[in-house]
Amino acid sequence: MRLLQVGAGCGRTIMKILSLLGSTGSIGTQTIEIVRRYPSEFRVAGLTTNAKIDVLQHQIELLKPEAVAVMDEAKAEELERKATVAVYKGMEGIRKIARLEQADTVVNALVGSIGIEPTYDAVMHGKNIALANKETLVAAGSVIVEAIGKKGISFMPIDSEHSAIFQCLKGERMKELKSITITCSGGPFRELSPREMAGVTITDALKHPTWKMGAKITVDSSTWMNKGFEVIEAHWLFGIPYERINVVVHPQSIVHSLVEFSDSSVIAQLGWPDMTIPIQYALTHPQRLPTSARPLDMAEAQKLEFLAPDTERFPCLAYAYGAGKAGGIVPAAMNAANEVAVQAFIKGEIGYLDIPEIIRRMMDAAPTHSHPSLQTILDIDKGTKEKAQLLVENDFRRQA
Amino acid sequence: MRLLQVGAGCGRTIMKILSLLGSTGSIGTQTIEIVRRYPSEFRVAGLTTNAKIDVLQHQIELLKPEAVAVMDEAKAEELERKATVAVYKGMEGIRKIARLEQADTVVNALVGSIGIEPTYDAVMHGKNIALANKETLVAAGSVIVEAIGKKGISFMPIDSEHSAIFQCLKGERMKELKSITITCSGGPFRELSPREMAGVTITDALKHPTWKMGAKITVDSSTWMNKGFEVIEAHWLFGIPYERINVVVHPQSIVHSLVEFSDSSVIAQLGWPDMTIPIQYALTHPQRLPTSARPLDMAEAQKLEFLAPDTERFPCLAYAYGAGKAGGIVPAAMNAANEVAVQAFIKGEIGYLDIPEIIRRMMDAAPTHSHPSLQTILDIDKGTKEKAQLLVENDFRRQA
Repeated sequence: MRLLQVGAGCGRTIMKILSLLGSTGSIGTQTIEIVRRYPSEFRVAGLTTNAKIDVLQHQIELLKPEAVAVMDEAKAEELERKATVAVYKGMEGIRKIARLEQADTVVNALVGSIGIEPTYDAVMHGKNIALANKETLVAAGSVIVEAIGKKGISFMPIDSEHSAIFQCLKGERMKELKSITITCSGGPFRELSPREMAGVTITDALKHPTWKMGAKITVDSSTWMNKGFEVIEAHWLFGIPYERINVVVHPQSIVHSLVEFSDSSVIAQLGWPDMTIPIQYALTHPQRLPTSARPLDMAEAQKLEFLAPDTERFPCLAYAYGAGKAGGIVPAAMNAANEVAVQAFIKGEIGYLDIPEIIRRMMDAAPTHSHPSLQTILDIDKGTKEKAQLLVENDFRRQA
Repeated sequence: MRLLQVGAGCGRTIMKILSLLGSTGSIGTQTIEIVRRYPSEFRVAGLTTNAKIDVLQHQIELLKPEAVAVMDEAKAEELERKATVAVYKGMEGIRKIARLEQADTVVNALVGSIGIEPTYDAVMHGKNIALANKETLVAAGSVIVEAIGKKGISFMPIDSEHSAIFQCLKGERMKELKSITITCSGGPFRELSPREMAGVTITDALKHPTWKMGAKITVDSSTWMNKGFEVIEAHWLFGIPYERINVVVHPQSIVHSLVEFSDSSVIAQLGWPDMTIPIQYALTHPQRLPTSARPLDMAEAQKLEFLAPDTERFPCLAYAYGAGKAGGIVPAAMNAANEVAVQAFIKGEIGYLDIPEIIRRMMDAAPTHSHPSLQTILDIDKGTKEKAQLLVENDFRRQA
């Protein structure tokens, strides 16, 4: 017995049948751990990988999906010879898994703008979405929001920051939401001078201080482009103008984001940095089930620091606000330029500070489209990538 | 338009008619500021004071209540000669205001165990309760919970910590609540050695590092008795066993409390130390309205620290856990002993470390009663106070 009437009602059962896009990556494998922990709640109907067919083969044996897809066509054919399930190939194969009849929920853990079309397909086929792919909302937010509005499906963010905001808004009224504050670890170069940043290598950039993630997102975190993406995603997820989305640097990555209400009360979500909680919450919401995440002990956390972001040294964050406010195809162009620049940096072709420079140049060159269709966005993505690749080769590529 | 379906529904109107017990104290005057900010939402039907009739007279002119009460009978008679409203006197007068027909909500901002009966009266007369009086739940939690269960009224905490927990639980399921963590500033003596603590004066004890409050609660905060009270209150408010109620020292008083769920996700409520938010939320829940509270800026807050509590130097917190777990009349005895000891300390009659010593002795001497009635609790309160007073006079009183 208790005095206060709090909390939510209805005990909805979870039981979801998943198509998991990008099952061999960081988010993908963590999702599978959750599925295996709760076999009576989840079943997997489809899996996809870019090229890691050995890992995928193991996942097929564990999870017995109906079908899988491999982006790399040669690898797909290799897998097809030994697999006991249907193997689809290429982009069309990934999209087939996104539309798979047996699945009710698509977990999109793809990296890059190749994630956009599968999300759209899944929405149009009435699948619920758990989204880790950032580029879907960054490049195609307006199109996806419109499609979801028509289809009335459930849409859940997997990012720790957006999951935090979503949890903080539980039971609250959106009209009483004053602002949101996304936390940012600051990445490994938070304290470097501009001159030191110029000498950063890929090895440096892959050492994230708090989160263990894939290579692309780790580089994006180091440049704060990732935080910029999250600002744009938050705009679409929560329908809140950019003026009311703030970023604060929080090196410990324990407060995952904060929400401020009209009475100046602030609600935050916290935990040790561990993607298990946001992934699982995206799959079990509105329920919570035990996770493997280590319980947070505030006295052990000891000290939480917060600093204003420095967009002079980390211009990508400012570019993202600019792209978001400009709207149209500017965010898609920004994202495409970033993908090319980051890949070139990972390959050692360009310097670290060339990344924001390439993004800026491609954003400046982006045409204006106020209400782009999905096809226009995909065309801009492709066109910008080609132009950015030329820029890399002609103006930035380092001497061998 | 937004992607995520979040938040609560129904736009209930607020409009409450209040009886405000303890209107001239710290919580009382802040409540009146809120009432005056929202004249179309609140009306005041009754006010009470211990003896500050000048302040009360001013409040009568501002708020035009139906009736008021003054605890001090001579002061009541003095006010009666000039007041334009009904003036009741003594404890019976306070209780009349708690039962006032015109009011639908009683804000109990009384200090000490004199707050117990008015809360009970208000509940039994079907009033909704906004409770700042700690002693009501500390001493008489079981009786109040039972009465509220019968009457089905709304019960809201005014304390910043309990308000924080309540806000963090919004929209959540109680069966998924794993633990709550109440934050504690640590008070002004957090870093003193036991020897330094022995020399603490009332002037030292009234210097709270973060919160501006009345004298009794400021001393209770310095000994951590106040935190112990909050642990017991949380037990009754949220129906959670003592084993799952934690305390963490947080010197900045910005995180007001935290809640942990079954998935290890933690939700916290934050703000600059300012009672405006919890008082107003207790009156407007489930709505939030703008307050005068300064918006929290995390980069300005800069650093939040958390430390494990030290119950060797601050034994009152351990006593409260012990009293809570023992149940029956032990918490009432502890509270009564504390009231007498703190008053004696404020008057300079005893030393600072005599406070926990007196509490411990009176707790040790407390008889066992597993299901005390309200009358038993009130008898124990009175009896313990008399015994504690004798103890002060005979064993502890300092040389003049």
